[in-house]
Amino acid sequence: MRQAFHSLMLQTPGPGLYEFTHRAEQFVRSERIQNGLLTCFVRHTSASLVIQENADPDVQKDLQDFFAWLAKSGPRFRHTAEGPDDMPSHIRAALTQTSIGIPVRQGALVLGTWQGLYLFEHRDTAHTREVVMQLMGE
Amino acid sequence: MRQAFHSLMLQTPGPGLYEFTHRAEQFVRSERIQNGLLTCFVRHTSASLVIQENADPDVQKDLQDFFAWLAKSGPRFRHTAEGPDDMPSHIRAALTQTSIGIPVRQGALVLGTWQGLYLFEHRDTAHTREVVMQLMGE
Amino acid sequence: MRQAFHSLMLQTPGPGLYEFTHRAEQFVRSERIQNGLLTCFVRHTSASLVIQENADPDVQKDLQDFFAWLAKSGPRFRHTAEGPDDMPSHIRAALTQTSIGIPVRQGALVLGTWQGLYLFEHRDTAHTREVVMQLMGE
Repeated sequence: MRQAFHSLMLQTPGPGLYEFTHRAEQFVRSERIQNGLLTCFVRHTSASLVIQENADPDVQKDLQDFFAWLAKSGPRFRHTAEGPDDMPSHIRAALTQTSIGIPVRQGALVLGTWQGLYLFEHRDTAHTREVVMQLMGE
Repeated sequence: MRQAFHSLMLQTPGPGLYEFTHRAEQFVRSERIQNGLLTCFVRHTSASLVIQENADPDVQKDLQDFFAWLAKSGPRFRHTAEGPDDMPSHIRAALTQTSIGIPVRQGALVLGTWQGLYLFEHRDTAHTREVVMQLMGE
Repeated sequence: MRQAFHSLMLQTPGPGLYEFTHRAEQFVRSERIQNGLLTCFVRHTSASLVIQENADPDVQKDLQDFFAWLAKSGPRFRHTAEGPDDMPSHIRAALTQTSIGIPVRQGALVLGTWQGLYLFEHRDTAHTREVVMQLMGE
């Protein structure tokens, strides 16, 4: 059994879901690991990871609206020094994932037909985000 | 170190939590891996995974009611073409897990005394759901 | 490729976030695994794991307040036998993580500059919590 790493840099012009399914699949193919486990880890606390439907783009907009609404519906925040969108971003990150493990079989991620792998950007302004991908298998 | 895969098919007559702890433990035992990591991955975006209390069944009902309430309390949805229960299902899936990693020690999952492993079905109608289990260890 | 386990016991005098980043890093260093995957798994259903900002302590207080507010805003609970803080604790655990996988590179966790690894205690009274850490790599 062996392992490989790849650091994926993603540009996010603003809040929303940014799909990187193809780039994760490309990494798996390039390493020629047939069976194993891919771990995706986002190195930030105001952006997160989520696996969601990749068919109707309205699903992504509804998800974004729901999480925006939810994070702003609670008690008033103490932490406001980094802007009014920072603390709601931390909450949306805590409600979703920092790390996702996806099994690899026969050279491909075992994603379902409608599953896409997304970076969920929560901040209002443009950012560069890093997702570390670690692949173990053979 | 070696690995094994198993595809678990679960019938869900309607919304709710469906425990598959015993089937995951059975898989680990049948593969005779003593120490390692089990990754459970659900191949859907309107069903998810959760580890919760397996003692009082009311906990599962309360969880189901809470998530049903939460997903319907936000802004109106754009995505309604697949039925009024589809978008709330995606939200409940995003709020819980698509993938869970559980260490294996001395031939058993390291689950706590009251921890059970559940498929969380979010759709109203009956479905067949697939959970891919990947086991690495020795 | 080899693996190692460590069982981390954490004392929680009351609800809140308890950082254990340094203890996870210490475990990785002591095992001298340069590259691999660390899986942290909490063996409870009323405490959970979360990766969040470790700079401004107000972020942790705001997170705690938000999740306390959210879990109490839904429908009335059936499960009250273990106290009024038990069912909200299960909900907060379901909304965050039971298990988190973190890649290890060059002998260190790939955490971002501001990322800390926390046990999120949800119960009102003092508890002893166990986090199982499993490390695979070489």
